[in-house]
Amino acid sequence: MAFFGASNNIASMGTHILMSVLTGGFKGKIYPVHRKESHVQNLKAYGHVADLPEVPDLAVIVLPTAVVNQTLEDCGRKGIKQVVVVSGGFKEVGAQGAELEGALKKIATLYNMKILGPNCLGVANPHRNINTTFVPNEGIPGFVGLSSQSGSFVTQMFEYLSGFGMGFSAAFSVGNEAVLDIVDCMEYLGKCPNTKVIALYIEGIQRGRTFMEAAKAIVPHKPIVAYYVGGSKAGKAAGFSHTGAMAGPDELYDGMFRQAGIIRARSVEEMFDFCWVLGALPIPEGNRVIIQTHSGGPGAAAADACGRVDLALATLSQETLEKLAPFIPSTGSVGNPVDLTFAKDYSSFFSSIPEILLAEENADILMVYLMSPQRVVERVLKGMGISDETIQEQGRKIVESNAEQFRAHLKTQKKPIVGYTFHRPDAQVMNEAIARGVPVFQGAERAARATAALVAYSKIRGREN
Amino acid sequence: MAFFGASNNIASMGTHILMSVLTGGFKGKIYPVHRKESHVQNLKAYGHVADLPEVPDLAVIVLPTAVVNQTLEDCGRKGIKQVVVVSGGFKEVGAQGAELEGALKKIATLYNMKILGPNCLGVANPHRNINTTFVPNEGIPGFVGLSSQSGSFVTQMFEYLSGFGMGFSAAFSVGNEAVLDIVDCMEYLGKCPNTKVIALYIEGIQRGRTFMEAAKAIVPHKPIVAYYVGGSKAGKAAGFSHTGAMAGPDELYDGMFRQAGIIRARSVEEMFDFCWVLGALPIPEGNRVIIQTHSGGPGAAAADACGRVDLALATLSQETLEKLAPFIPSTGSVGNPVDLTFAKDYSSFFSSIPEILLAEENADILMVYLMSPQRVVERVLKGMGISDETIQEQGRKIVESNAEQFRAHLKTQKKPIVGYTFHRPDAQVMNEAIARGVPVFQGAERAARATAALVAYSKIRGREN
Repeated sequence: MAFFGASNNIASMGTHILMSVLTGGFKGKIYPVHRKESHVQNLKAYGHVADLPEVPDLAVIVLPTAVVNQTLEDCGRKGIKQVVVVSGGFKEVGAQGAELEGALKKIATLYNMKILGPNCLGVANPHRNINTTFVPNEGIPGFVGLSSQSGSFVTQMFEYLSGFGMGFSAAFSVGNEAVLDIVDCMEYLGKCPNTKVIALYIEGIQRGRTFMEAAKAIVPHKPIVAYYVGGSKAGKAAGFSHTGAMAGPDELYDGMFRQAGIIRARSVEEMFDFCWVLGALPIPEGNRVIIQTHSGGPGAAAADACGRVDLALATLSQETLEKLAPFIPSTGSVGNPVDLTFAKDYSSFFSSIPEILLAEENADILMVYLMSPQRVVERVLKGMGISDETIQEQGRKIVESNAEQFRAHLKTQKKPIVGYTFHRPDAQVMNEAIARGVPVFQGAERAARATAALVAYSKIRGREN
Repeated sequence: MAFFGASNNIASMGTHILMSVLTGGFKGKIYPVHRKESHVQNLKAYGHVADLPEVPDLAVIVLPTAVVNQTLEDCGRKGIKQVVVVSGGFKEVGAQGAELEGALKKIATLYNMKILGPNCLGVANPHRNINTTFVPNEGIPGFVGLSSQSGSFVTQMFEYLSGFGMGFSAAFSVGNEAVLDIVDCMEYLGKCPNTKVIALYIEGIQRGRTFMEAAKAIVPHKPIVAYYVGGSKAGKAAGFSHTGAMAGPDELYDGMFRQAGIIRARSVEEMFDFCWVLGALPIPEGNRVIIQTHSGGPGAAAADACGRVDLALATLSQETLEKLAPFIPSTGSVGNPVDLTFAKDYSSFFSSIPEILLAEENADILMVYLMSPQRVVERVLKGMGISDETIQEQGRKIVESNAEQFRAHLKTQKKPIVGYTFHRPDAQVMNEAIARGVPVFQGAERAARATAALVAYSKIRGREN
């Protein structure tokens, strides 16, 4: 990797990006190019790209606008074929910048160079320890591939996604899309083996037809989720000032997404909610949900949320009702939602009951309300004179072993299990379930909407195959 | 308080509830009534309610169904006027239970007793250290008054609300509503001085006309937010099996809410989001929003989210544009969203810029994207050889002092400030802002929808006054 724009000045953007590359654990050689310094961040620096001892696979350019094109020329002459141009000051600032961008494109054509940007935050590929953004990636390598017309939705999602136990397979900030655009990056992600689901943050698509064809080719084997921000009048104006991309009417994009089999999200949060279930869970056969709860309100709220999206409540078979009966107390309900109230044996909520419900022929999906009565149990144990340490350790073990049951269920039954809760996002009951492959959402609405996305993809795939 | 059903058996529900009362720090005297024990949880116990040395203000009954009515009779004879009946086994279990509930009502009438329940989780009033639910309240006394047809949405919200720095003023689980119903509790909350906003979890309203009249009387001086779960077919079925309440068609309730000036939420999460802004912020004059951000994507996403609800993007006056200019770098945008990209002086994002924007005559609301570049700053300081401890302490102080600016802005300008972020809910940048009275939501969509609820209330109040 050749690096232009890093120095020993710790306040410069280029230096920051180089630091991200270094702390990200990049395995290849890094050649900083600097006119004056002999070393940059303890790496041997070179006065000119022509002096480099080999032809780098990639160049990252974080230089003042005025010298970007000359540097690209030099990279081209050296034989570098892939470049990330972080520098701004092009199309997004008006006519003069647009002219510079035109020249940049010509250089790319002349030297057959693939350029990401300009005016972008670069690329992150945690599986290959690459991160050319200025934000250190604290996340884990994951399965979400992102092609984004906003750099923030790469960098600010490192922390956000890791909060859900998720991470990027690869994420591209496409900037002004002078050469490579959101469609090219989507196509790359379509082929990327680490990417299970593709997310698109769209302010406006320039190559509509190519986009449609590419998406149609990907969707049968890999789901695509899009958040399109240019549709509302306000979003359109904001997007325009951001990257200079032209937005179209909301209905047009809606129709395009529908036709291509792309699942549309209505916010960034929802886009990643959808990616989560689509990447982590088996695709259901149909839309029939069983809700398992131990309180009436959360059960009713989930039923309501399912009713407002394209999900049906499964009708339990006589066989299932009979199998369930021994586990449900008289205060509970063996309908759907299956409401245990106070389970006779708390552990059955994670073992026997989901096992019975997942075997139900009339159902495709299990939605589980997760509530850990930790405080109540702690109080009981404390009252019995057990030490705080023992209580906490025991409590942790119980939650772990309960969550472990989910892993077994997911293995034997190829049906998705989606959790919802009102515990805090850092609650152990959430984290342990998530670590075992069960996405857990705060609140029934998010869970239901994400589940509906799973069902939508099931239908799309059925239609496409 | 007289307490029926607690013992020294730590596994019983009654004992648990008594423990909640005790750990909640209830200041009054507690008289456990127990046939056999001389002491219950270290409190002197009485063999019969008639033996109590005074007439308690409240009785809590957690006894087997069969002895509830006799106990109520005894309480009535003693002169007790307020009773919480936690015990289930009444209307919700069928005809026989309904008969028992009929008898319970007659006893209430005979002795002029106010009864909450049966089949409820009781009441929590953190301001008065009362908690008759089985879950310890770890939350703080707050401003949200809840009247709920689900007990879970009392108990499971203790933790949930405290995660947002919120808490209940008072919360009622109304259970089967044999005597006191959701409307009575709403009326109480309308008068409660600690309650700034009322939340209603509704599966079905029995006294429609009284409900409407009561709500109409409250709304001009206190907002009401409702989540109605019985509207969808699935929600209706689930709600019916839960408390036996009759649900009506969704449109009917929608019309009722509209007519009464009640703001409707579409989920529990949203209900409390709405309560948050309505209780914490000044009510805006209109719907014109300024979005302040330092990244284009989050700005565009917020604009899009505003465009999808009843919020308009304010047009900045020439005066504001001129005042802003010195603070915005050439890469930024002085339109709306106000996009700073990299602020020349980071602290101006919290001081001068919001001050200028809040003074804008053409705007009613400020929406701020909160992103703390903590990791980046930490890296810089670390590179300068500063110790981890110093870095963390300095970082904390900066976030604190930035958040402190919000408090000052809210004081001088009577306009709401709503934050949104993609940081984790436990991030310092969220907590410090929240502690200064600025609600901060994960993602622009939640922020925009909550802000729209503020505007809706502004309109409703204008209409009613």
